[in-house]
Amino acid sequence: MAPVGAGLWRTLRAHQVYGANTDVGKTIVSTVLCNAVQRQKQRAAFLKPVSTGALDDADDRHIERYGAGTLTKCLYQFDEPVSPHIAAKSKTIPRDDDLLASIHKTLSTWARTDIDFALVETAGGVHSPGPNGNSQADLYRPLRLPIVLVADSRLGGISSSISAYESLLLRGYDVQSVLLFRDDYYQNHDYLGEYFRNKSIPLVHLPAPPSKPLQMDADALKRDEEAMFKYYRQASEESDILRLLDELNLRNEQRIEKLEEMANRAHDLIWYPFTQHQGMQAKDITVIDSAHDDYFQTFGSGRTENSESELRPTFDGSASWWTQGLGHGNPDLALSAAYAAGRYGHVMFAGAIHEPALSLADNLLKALDNPRFGKVFYTDNGSTGMEVAVKMGLRVACDRYGWDASEEKINILGLKGSYHGDTIGVMDCSEPSTYNKKVEWYRGRGHWFDFPLVKMVDGKWKVEVPAELQEDLGSDMDFNSLGSVFDLDQRLGSETSQRYKKYIHDTIKDLVDTHGMKFGALILEPVILGAGGMLFCDPLFQRCLTDVVREHPELFSSNAPPAKESPSWSGLPVVFDEVFTGLYRLGRPTSASFLGVHPDIAVNAKLLTGGLIPLCTTAASKEIFDTFSSPEKSDALLHGHSYTAHAMGCTVAVDSLRTMSEMDKDGSWDGYRADWREESTLTETATPEVWSVWSNALLKDLSCAESVESVFAIGTVLSISLHDEQGAGYTSNAAKGLQQDLAAGGDQFNVHSRVLGNVLYLMSSVTSKPESLKEMERLLRSSLT
Amino acid sequence: MAPVGAGLWRTLRAHQVYGANTDVGKTIVSTVLCNAVQRQKQRAAFLKPVSTGALDDADDRHIERYGAGTLTKCLYQFDEPVSPHIAAKSKTIPRDDDLLASIHKTLSTWARTDIDFALVETAGGVHSPGPNGNSQADLYRPLRLPIVLVADSRLGGISSSISAYESLLLRGYDVQSVLLFRDDYYQNHDYLGEYFRNKSIPLVHLPAPPSKPLQMDADALKRDEEAMFKYYRQASEESDILRLLDELNLRNEQRIEKLEEMANRAHDLIWYPFTQHQGMQAKDITVIDSAHDDYFQTFGSGRTENSESELRPTFDGSASWWTQGLGHGNPDLALSAAYAAGRYGHVMFAGAIHEPALSLADNLLKALDNPRFGKVFYTDNGSTGMEVAVKMGLRVACDRYGWDASEEKINILGLKGSYHGDTIGVMDCSEPSTYNKKVEWYRGRGHWFDFPLVKMVDGKWKVEVPAELQEDLGSDMDFNSLGSVFDLDQRLGSETSQRYKKYIHDTIKDLVDTHGMKFGALILEPVILGAGGMLFCDPLFQRCLTDVVREHPELFSSNAPPAKESPSWSGLPVVFDEVFTGLYRLGRPTSASFLGVHPDIAVNAKLLTGGLIPLCTTAASKEIFDTFSSPEKSDALLHGHSYTAHAMGCTVAVDSLRTMSEMDKDGSWDGYRADWREESTLTETATPEVWSVWSNALLKDLSCAESVESVFAIGTVLSISLHDEQGAGYTSNAAKGLQQDLAAGGDQFNVHSRVLGNVLYLMSSVTSKPESLKEMERLLRSSLT
Repeated sequence: MAPVGAGLWRTLRAHQVYGANTDVGKTIVSTVLCNAVQRQKQRAAFLKPVSTGALDDADDRHIERYGAGTLTKCLYQFDEPVSPHIAAKSKTIPRDDDLLASIHKTLSTWARTDIDFALVETAGGVHSPGPNGNSQADLYRPLRLPIVLVADSRLGGISSSISAYESLLLRGYDVQSVLLFRDDYYQNHDYLGEYFRNKSIPLVHLPAPPSKPLQMDADALKRDEEAMFKYYRQASEESDILRLLDELNLRNEQRIEKLEEMANRAHDLIWYPFTQHQGMQAKDITVIDSAHDDYFQTFGSGRTENSESELRPTFDGSASWWTQGLGHGNPDLALSAAYAAGRYGHVMFAGAIHEPALSLADNLLKALDNPRFGKVFYTDNGSTGMEVAVKMGLRVACDRYGWDASEEKINILGLKGSYHGDTIGVMDCSEPSTYNKKVEWYRGRGHWFDFPLVKMVDGKWKVEVPAELQEDLGSDMDFNSLGSVFDLDQRLGSETSQRYKKYIHDTIKDLVDTHGMKFGALILEPVILGAGGMLFCDPLFQRCLTDVVREHPELFSSNAPPAKESPSWSGLPVVFDEVFTGLYRLGRPTSASFLGVHPDIAVNAKLLTGGLIPLCTTAASKEIFDTFSSPEKSDALLHGHSYTAHAMGCTVAVDSLRTMSEMDKDGSWDGYRADWREESTLTETATPEVWSVWSNALLKDLSCAESVESVFAIGTVLSISLHDEQGAGYTSNAAKGLQQDLAAGGDQFNVHSRVLGNVLYLMSSVTSKPESLKEMERLLRSSLT
Repeated sequence: MAPVGAGLWRTLRAHQVYGANTDVGKTIVSTVLCNAVQRQKQRAAFLKPVSTGALDDADDRHIERYGAGTLTKCLYQFDEPVSPHIAAKSKTIPRDDDLLASIHKTLSTWARTDIDFALVETAGGVHSPGPNGNSQADLYRPLRLPIVLVADSRLGGISSSISAYESLLLRGYDVQSVLLFRDDYYQNHDYLGEYFRNKSIPLVHLPAPPSKPLQMDADALKRDEEAMFKYYRQASEESDILRLLDELNLRNEQRIEKLEEMANRAHDLIWYPFTQHQGMQAKDITVIDSAHDDYFQTFGSGRTENSESELRPTFDGSASWWTQGLGHGNPDLALSAAYAAGRYGHVMFAGAIHEPALSLADNLLKALDNPRFGKVFYTDNGSTGMEVAVKMGLRVACDRYGWDASEEKINILGLKGSYHGDTIGVMDCSEPSTYNKKVEWYRGRGHWFDFPLVKMVDGKWKVEVPAELQEDLGSDMDFNSLGSVFDLDQRLGSETSQRYKKYIHDTIKDLVDTHGMKFGALILEPVILGAGGMLFCDPLFQRCLTDVVREHPELFSSNAPPAKESPSWSGLPVVFDEVFTGLYRLGRPTSASFLGVHPDIAVNAKLLTGGLIPLCTTAASKEIFDTFSSPEKSDALLHGHSYTAHAMGCTVAVDSLRTMSEMDKDGSWDGYRADWREESTLTETATPEVWSVWSNALLKDLSCAESVESVFAIGTVLSISLHDEQGAGYTSNAAKGLQQDLAAGGDQFNVHSRVLGNVLYLMSSVTSKPESLKEMERLLRSSLT
């Protein structure tokens, strides 16, 4: 099923009518509005997606009779005056997606006619269940039509109206107007008028409609009909109603105007991250009106031949810089965040504790499942978390080895192509590259190993050894499955492993003994080096590197205690930067687990909050923590940000971790796992479980495409490396064509993607729908094969 | 009026009963619960704070009759069956604070008796207005009693029940149970049962109560009474109700147990920011259960002689590390945050735009009111925002002066005691200090001027010149008011100004010419250097420093264009770190305005989001931006964090800026302003407006206290420098005594404060209540004078 786009039309003002409760007069209010439109010589239309109640009393019939020519339509009709989810039990139920698609199609069709104004009426209150039992506020959210809220004029109506409003806001709806009946005894319109005025939302009160006749004889019915006609005639001429229609018209126009100028204004005001602005034009800026699940709703990227809505779904193919996990606009996370804001705001963390920070530390340590870890340090993002990790690592090495760091240069041991963030301290942990080399204070401090890469070429998994390393490490290796690449129990006994270790050992020995280098920490991004170009490192190489460092502490200092006597870390403290690769990005709670290594320090961010809000953790062993213990305050880790362990982030993170862990266990990903298990068991037995949301068949096909150099997929990540005759690297334009094809999209949606030189990667959330991924795969095949 | 504490008692389970709507049967449900408690040989009590409706039908009367011995009490009784805010119009209205205090007092009194279980019933729905017109959900929030939510079993009740639940969560309430009547036609209990089960909230459905008799003759009333007695007897024996009571009991116990072990668990798991853990004990950790307005609700800090609640209000005297502006648990900000989460989640920012990011950039530039600024760069916190500022500054200087920074050391010009954050790059912008000198990669790169300080000593404002600078700068100066210290128009013409400028000029010339230093940026915290020890720099000195740098570009390079020809920045790019001092912390939108300087780059964070969530902006001039423009991607500012310009932060920031700016204009701070204007006009005319929430009289008194070396206040900041015979500085313990006195608090609340060596500072939010500040002043006087 294609995702439905949000609705916004130039020629049609379409609103969704929600009631603060059932029986507040939604249909009467709708009829008044439609009457007023029709009387102004414009055309109104009324859509009831799902109607419950006796046929002859149905809302669309009412408006047909009294709507002064309003076009009416009902998509699904149920007879019982109960919630649609109960009424629907006895009938064929439309799927939520079908319902949305029908609404969108109806409105788009209307937009092509002379209809100016349309109302889409809901049933009952905002959270009354739709036909499949989902709250209407959630069900209709993808359309995100501006809301006409019909408030409740009865006793208790102040409360239900405000709560309904809050429930709509929690889901990112824009409430554009509030209407209700006048009741001079309860005076809700007074109270609510002021309430909504403070929020710049116009509230209009209408005279109460004539009471229903007690008897239903023909005379009474006739009098009732006359009274209703009179009521609608009068109500639809009230100046407040006419003003409101003007206001709604204006808001629709202004919304489109704002969207139209947004790219220009952004081009004028915003200094974009990681962006060379020269040559960048306003039209290159994606205007995001809202987002839902995997999709941005983007303006100006419409394909008018298919739909006249100004907004179009665009798949968030970079998972918003690798953060997205549980879907945009997730109402559960929004509510968790709001709860934390309401309970705490942000509270001081130094010397204090609050429940979300404690729960997260506890749950995170359980998820990381590393017996070394005992302490959690909070910061705001991956870069600051890595700064903390570096400070921890350098301190413990200098402390054990007796180095005076103010006198000596202490280096990092790592891999070429590493990336750990943009603050200058962690920039220094990477070798000179496009990213950092022009930063005035950048001073790369380290040695970075080149390494063998895992990739699928022409339908075959292989480990490719860089030419200049083949003498030491041996030549390229073929594998029958990705699982077998990760079969480290097996591979550690191989000759390759011996070669890797010898090469690593000798290199370090040379750096230390011959070049006098001192090393303070081993820092790795396990499995995939992300920003460096989606480099999939042979896990055996990373494992051997860690093993050599830990088994040969004597390499780093003659002071080093022998490996066996080392209390916990040995050789160098091992820091894993799992900011990108951790917490289910690659299908597992940790990427360390792929290597079978327990690091001494690990950094997590991005998916930690499910993709909602910045937060970072640096987990460390108790022994590393103890090194900072002293009677001197100045020996402490004097690092801390204002919003350290902010309650909203921690609360959302607790929920996100729990949700992802439940999905891991409840079989949500079993379809993907089965696809990959098949690949694995076809070839050999008992290899470690490695899987991806991207299909094996896709990988095979893409890897054989002419323009493709290699591909890989693991977890939610798909990486496509394209041939570039000018050479690979960050400045390559090889992937631009594919990126443009994806951006143009297909019938259903466009695709936002990011490239790293000649590599185009795609990343889903952990909740992406299989249908969305199938369409993505179709688009990829259509562009590349 | 004293702030009310949150309610939590060991021997009394107290709950607040909210209804999903009016007329859902709150009182009947309460009566069932109280009956069940009483029948279990425990004691129940029922408190109706505000009752509306005919006297003989009042809820407390009902429960008196049917409650099986339940103790009942009503605090305020109004006759009309309308919202309390309307009923109250004809009667003396209790203030909200009085109402809360009465409830708290009643419950505390009950807790000292044999009462085990208490219900505090609200009127109408969750948002029904209290006597003063405020929503009850807001009004009762400071008590934050666990909630019994009575859901609505009628048509539409699913929606109103879920919306009511969401409104409660938005305010940080814990809903501990949901009850409603069975209705086999609408089956709301089925739907809601599953809904709340997914949230681990027990839902219990009760048989519907007997219908009211249609006639009110004596017989009918008697039959009704009998039916009600029978109903209560049966309902209160339902096993679900008994299980629920056990569950509520357990939750109260577990809540206290969790709070009791929280400090120990935190001591075990958390690596605290800026904390030397040696000697730190679990008991030193403040356990924060929730927070509201200016107060944490802390556990274990109670003064049992006054109140038996386990929670006590503790004034957040560090404004949670200087972030807090609009009060903890602010429901407007919580709703804004939730709206952004619901509309976007977080969406990709590189190459994209969304409304909150654009609005914030626009509104921020208007608030900063600096004609130089044209661009906004987003990051996550002050430290990362300053990293960006440094990268900007160094680049433009190196570019203009033709320096190859990879070969040469480029320095920062600044002030001693500066602090710009904890990432290593910005640590390098400060001189060696306790904070940074032990960080292995720290390399201070700069020159930092010592400077004259503004302080009040013995009731007199003075500018104190460090002894070793007196030869150059002259001796200490007295001022009649703080306003006159800021009268730079006047002071720039003085001899002092000439001396300042000459000293600064000659020093820079010497550093460059004799010592060969190269400078890339001037970086200042305008007015107050915060983390360095609340150092209040003579604004004239900062102004002269900026003027000299801009008027004498030739100091820095022979390549420099003359000041008059310089297109915008001249000499060095001037960076203002307003992370702490900006956005109304000192009573004005910018601290730059105190100096009359337009910096080239400015960094804002902390108060930017009103104290809710991390976000930072680096504003820069168009010319600085253009320096990064080139055909080479690698010349761009390749900096960016995953959650750059996250929608929640930007949305909350837009609201916070607007709120603070409205307060600035609508006279919210006029009382404070008047107090300070008086000081000023008593002595001289037309000095610039400088004011503080802390009273002039307090400053005078404290500054004369024996243990006090000096004081100052400006905006929301109060700083008290204490005599220390062992010398001042970060390691001093001189302020410990005062800090302990404040922590012990008075009758009303405790005070959390932070010290910087011998300086204790206090900071309010911009919405602090004058009564709270008065009590704070009383505590200070009582400790110091």
